[in-house]
Amino acid sequence: MTQPMRVAVTGGEGMLGRLLAERLDPARFVVRPLGRKEADVTDLAALERAFADTDAVVHLAANSQVGAPWDALVGPNLLGAYHAFEAARRAGVRRVVFASSNHAVGMYLMDADVFADPSRPHLVTPEDPVRPDSLYGATKAWGEALGRLYAEMHELEVVCLRIGWVTEDDRPPTPAQSIREDPEVKRRAPAMWLSHRDCISLIDASLGADLRFGIVNGVSDNAGRWFSLDEGRRLLGWEPADGLR
Amino acid sequence: MTQPMRVAVTGGEGMLGRLLAERLDPARFVVRPLGRKEADVTDLAALERAFADTDAVVHLAANSQVGAPWDALVGPNLLGAYHAFEAARRAGVRRVVFASSNHAVGMYLMDADVFADPSRPHLVTPEDPVRPDSLYGATKAWGEALGRLYAEMHELEVVCLRIGWVTEDDRPPTPAQSIREDPEVKRRAPAMWLSHRDCISLIDASLGADLRFGIVNGVSDNAGRWFSLDEGRRLLGWEPADGLR
Repeated sequence: MTQPMRVAVTGGEGMLGRLLAERLDPARFVVRPLGRKEADVTDLAALERAFADTDAVVHLAANSQVGAPWDALVGPNLLGAYHAFEAARRAGVRRVVFASSNHAVGMYLMDADVFADPSRPHLVTPEDPVRPDSLYGATKAWGEALGRLYAEMHELEVVCLRIGWVTEDDRPPTPAQSIREDPEVKRRAPAMWLSHRDCISLIDASLGADLRFGIVNGVSDNAGRWFSLDEGRRLLGWEPADGLR
Repeated sequence: MTQPMRVAVTGGEGMLGRLLAERLDPARFVVRPLGRKEADVTDLAALERAFADTDAVVHLAANSQVGAPWDALVGPNLLGAYHAFEAARRAGVRRVVFASSNHAVGMYLMDADVFADPSRPHLVTPEDPVRPDSLYGATKAWGEALGRLYAEMHELEVVCLRIGWVTEDDRPPTPAQSIREDPEVKRRAPAMWLSHRDCISLIDASLGADLRFGIVNGVSDNAGRWFSLDEGRRLLGWEPADGLR
């Protein structure tokens, strides 16, 4: 029988970190959630120590506020992403799953061309150019570029997940919850939902799939979605089970 | 007669900065080269002051060493790119021309698929995903993502130029000058040449063209080139006059 994979999770105290610790299959994964005390992402040496004896890292730690100002992003997101990849490389980690975000391409949500037919939006794929909707989103595009560099220049395997909209109570979001002001854009936003079950299966697949590098959209199969699911199927064999109808 | 455009140039003491000060058409552009003393790119407030009464900024200041280590890139390139766009926005500058680099997509140079037919390589365009070949290249991808954000969220017009290989003496580079080790890759590298004349006409076009955002390849029309010239023609009306044969 194969050994379970040892998985360190930065941002272990956050919503997604707690979800992974609770729900990743314990027969296949030994999850080590790392809080800020064990793994301060602004401290490269501390992160390298925290990644010792680890097969894979799921890098969730970041300021996840879409409206976060610059000063609150530099340490956790900009330096943090570099530290995560570099510490993983130094510690001999095999794979990093980087929590990117739909906000790396969030400007497509405001693009009338994408929604010319509202019932069947144009599907945005990771092959389309990045279009961040915020400084936060730009830091996620930065992390993806770094991830590709580490996969192509070094021995790391890297999966970047453009995670959609995960809610604390796992209920699909409503237009009213969107931070956007334009009512049209508000209506489109819930199609970014990612259920807890789909989030777990996506990260499970990202840890196990045979690939060197990939950027994959992480949304449930929602009506009106503008995120392609093709690369999830193709690269990870992942199929969401849920979807907003 | 229209007023000449007031153009502030960060990195004014560098090779490209000096070239612009010497050779941009003085009838159309009043160039203000900013050295480190007038425009320290790690200091947002100083940069905002330096951009007062400016129509356009050409942001060249950066650590331009492809092999530069992380610590030498954080200030000038990572923070510096944000400071340049943000200071330009605050100072009411209309357009920023951002000196990106071929190294934002440098990994395509190592890709055998691109060079399956060495006499006619597959042409890489700004629509292709970024593939940095270095931390330096990743910082340039970051600057491009920021540029798009500032163009789409704010009032700035932004042109990102993936500048090729400009030599001090304006002679085409030779394979021996390439930092790459693989002899095959070394042979391909000179096709990244950008002559002084083409560099000047490219920046001239980038300052004057009617557009909100664009990423444009900046190479001369070299034999064996793997950089598309189409978006330069389409977005800027730019055509290189030189080319390595």
